[in-house]
Amino acid sequence: MMNSNIQDSRLFKIANPAGIAFFGASNNYSSMGTNMLQSIQAMGFKGALYPVHPKEETVLGLTAYASVSDLPETPDLAVIVLPTRIVIETMEACGKKGIKHAIVVTAGFKEMGTDGIALEKKLLETTRAYGITMVGPNCIGVTNPHHLLNSTFLPFEGTPGFIGMASQSGSFITQMFGYLGPRGLGFSTGFSVGNEADADIVDCMEYFGACPHTRVIALYIESIRRGRAFIETARAITPEKPIVAFYVGGSEGGKRASFSHTGSLAGPDRLYDGIFRQSGVIRAYSIDEMFDFCYVLGTLPPPAGNRVAIQTHSGGPGAAAADGCSRAGLVLPSLSDDTRDKLSPYIPATASHANPVDLTYTKNPLDYFSKIPEILLSDEHTDSMLVYLLASSSMIKRALEGMGMSAGDADENTEKIIDQQCSSMADIMTSGGKPLVGYSFLTRQNSFIKNLQDKGIPVLPGPERAAKAMGALVRYKQLRDKIAED
Amino acid sequence: MMNSNIQDSRLFKIANPAGIAFFGASNNYSSMGTNMLQSIQAMGFKGALYPVHPKEETVLGLTAYASVSDLPETPDLAVIVLPTRIVIETMEACGKKGIKHAIVVTAGFKEMGTDGIALEKKLLETTRAYGITMVGPNCIGVTNPHHLLNSTFLPFEGTPGFIGMASQSGSFITQMFGYLGPRGLGFSTGFSVGNEADADIVDCMEYFGACPHTRVIALYIESIRRGRAFIETARAITPEKPIVAFYVGGSEGGKRASFSHTGSLAGPDRLYDGIFRQSGVIRAYSIDEMFDFCYVLGTLPPPAGNRVAIQTHSGGPGAAAADGCSRAGLVLPSLSDDTRDKLSPYIPATASHANPVDLTYTKNPLDYFSKIPEILLSDEHTDSMLVYLLASSSMIKRALEGMGMSAGDADENTEKIIDQQCSSMADIMTSGGKPLVGYSFLTRQNSFIKNLQDKGIPVLPGPERAAKAMGALVRYKQLRDKIAED
Repeated sequence: MMNSNIQDSRLFKIANPAGIAFFGASNNYSSMGTNMLQSIQAMGFKGALYPVHPKEETVLGLTAYASVSDLPETPDLAVIVLPTRIVIETMEACGKKGIKHAIVVTAGFKEMGTDGIALEKKLLETTRAYGITMVGPNCIGVTNPHHLLNSTFLPFEGTPGFIGMASQSGSFITQMFGYLGPRGLGFSTGFSVGNEADADIVDCMEYFGACPHTRVIALYIESIRRGRAFIETARAITPEKPIVAFYVGGSEGGKRASFSHTGSLAGPDRLYDGIFRQSGVIRAYSIDEMFDFCYVLGTLPPPAGNRVAIQTHSGGPGAAAADGCSRAGLVLPSLSDDTRDKLSPYIPATASHANPVDLTYTKNPLDYFSKIPEILLSDEHTDSMLVYLLASSSMIKRALEGMGMSAGDADENTEKIIDQQCSSMADIMTSGGKPLVGYSFLTRQNSFIKNLQDKGIPVLPGPERAAKAMGALVRYKQLRDKIAED
Repeated sequence: MMNSNIQDSRLFKIANPAGIAFFGASNNYSSMGTNMLQSIQAMGFKGALYPVHPKEETVLGLTAYASVSDLPETPDLAVIVLPTRIVIETMEACGKKGIKHAIVVTAGFKEMGTDGIALEKKLLETTRAYGITMVGPNCIGVTNPHHLLNSTFLPFEGTPGFIGMASQSGSFITQMFGYLGPRGLGFSTGFSVGNEADADIVDCMEYFGACPHTRVIALYIESIRRGRAFIETARAITPEKPIVAFYVGGSEGGKRASFSHTGSLAGPDRLYDGIFRQSGVIRAYSIDEMFDFCYVLGTLPPPAGNRVAIQTHSGGPGAAAADGCSRAGLVLPSLSDDTRDKLSPYIPATASHANPVDLTYTKNPLDYFSKIPEILLSDEHTDSMLVYLLASSSMIKRALEGMGMSAGDADENTEKIIDQQCSSMADIMTSGGKPLVGYSFLTRQNSFIKNLQDKGIPVLPGPERAAKAMGALVRYKQLRDKIAED
């Protein structure tokens, strides 16, 4: 079932086409199809683009063709954004031309009820007759920044990343560009699967299992069409790559909304929890949670167990993290006497040696990023660590200026000091082999946060989110071990 | 117990002092006390500032006094940031001078165990002997932007707001400045209560109950010292102002962390849930949740019931909101036939008339902000509304340019159109008398989001958070009604 080579995936040519026939773009800038072709152009797609249009000679500056049969070659992929009534005849023409892959953006199929169901069946018969692999209908296509391909109607923002996402809502691909970028994250590839008449999330999972750019798989699920295949595929992938699913169909409101969205029948939470557990898939309850989990799972090795040391210099954020850990199934071990002894030279007398280790302040701020986490991570009772970050570059600068440095020199040295501190923390984590997650109310606009993130330490916005994400990392280890046992 | 006049509050002179005697600032820029006095200066405090220092003639450019007895007048407030061992004698000197209010920042009291407990008792005997109201010890003081007062060690950022916060962690006052500002929120006044040897969160609640700038009260709680007073005070305030509490002491980790933070003994979740329910206080489980709830509770009137209409043009964000509503105890009513008829002219044939109303796209984008929410809010089955916002100013600009407008004119007209659309939605909400909460993956950097927020429509980051906050608004109504019944 699993492909070891991504080129064997059914979806390979859909995410990595050499050329595209595009149906539904024109020179009318307000149409959906035009917007989508513009997105493809804007990203700098390297392959051939063939707009097919019955009347125009050029579309968006590209040579247009009256019919797909006129194209000078057979492209890998057709993208169809046409009125519902002419989708099937267009698919037939593509089949005759020898095109083997298609994305159908057009809606008006299964999600519309009886007539739409019949139409979707007929569409599927057409693709099968010509051996075409289809994504959709009622989807917004694919984004593969590594291939400079973005067929969605919003311009791609951000950078390529390590999250492979398959979504039963196009919005959670295209509207996430601006969400992931400021967090330092990005998609390896994102598939909007729509009604899943042919290719479905299981096909996407197989693709991501073999995709070298993908370190973690994110799924937005309103219902699972092929339960058994889902479980088998997930179990084959989980030992190598974690899978996180945000499932919304399990509540009354979610179930009804899913049905009118893609025409699928969702099942109760209990049923899906069982499927996910069997599959080794980690469930998330919101978009934030899904991407928090992906961030940590795609960045860090899982810890040996559920024992967490918390380091803070502020009592409240420490207590909130401790509370979050307990609620996420993690425990806060007492530190060994040896650890307490080792910590003493670095922390003030009024600080707490308990866990959370609350420094109140550090004698030498650099210790916060080096000696202290090093000692805590090497404690034999500790499997992982959470560190609160309130690191202000303006305070370092003020201190340097206080030591007589000019403003320009202070600026330069501040950046150097930040880089040293962050390198030190990243080195400690790497050599210790135990995961460390930062948390802060600051964003990536803060130099410390950006630098730590760029060096491979995930920093999450707030104590509970960091605790939950660490909980997901522990859960991944448990699920993976369980699959290995079976 | 409750003051109708804020000037009768024990804490009035602490949050609104005319003059301050400051102990522990020097010309050493790395000391905590110096940082705190700098913060007071930086905010432009209008009252007199009297640094007391044994050796310096001036401190931070202010005339310094060798002893508090030398001050030319008796200031309202003493702020003490001195070594633990000289706090009590300093308090005694303040008492002799006739000072009646003090903030003790210094740590090393109850939170340190036996010796500290004895020391704190002695400190309290001193303040009582002189009739001094004290906040602390082991706190970081008060921020009252309406009085241009910020005694915390971080510079104040942002603008005055309507959230009155009392916190058993100073971090959740001072480190929230940069968190609240970008969300368009701010504190009316924030108290860091520390060990609560004298004044405690109940005193703060009384202050906020009478504070004209405060529309909602936020509490960060590790333990409640005076249970009965807490319940009575909260019940007196809740009919007028909602109270939200983030309690972290209820889990094993949270309990242990709280103990080493402020030396208080926390109770199990069950006990505190009971206290909150009796008090009419809404519980939050994270900082995000607490401020989300405060945002909505401080902005909108509570709905008559728990029936929510969801408006979206993207299926996934609609389904996620529907799922979130169900999990937050809200229901999604079927819309009346009349509503469906009224909607028809404004929405495409492929759109869903069910709830969530998923427009897929709007024939005329302006309808999304006017006709459609107006129709949905006037449905008799609807008590409130959630609206998904993915509004792009660049798309409006592109359309205007497509109509032949110059770039400059398009920019100007884009802002006008956004303002019209947002005004329209705000008017509809106000005249309908039902609460409307927006949700988006965009931030306040987007013109639509900022404009809507500035016009009084709360916009929260994501569907589940919006649903939970609406759930808190419904809960507030229920708790208030229950108290009125009793």
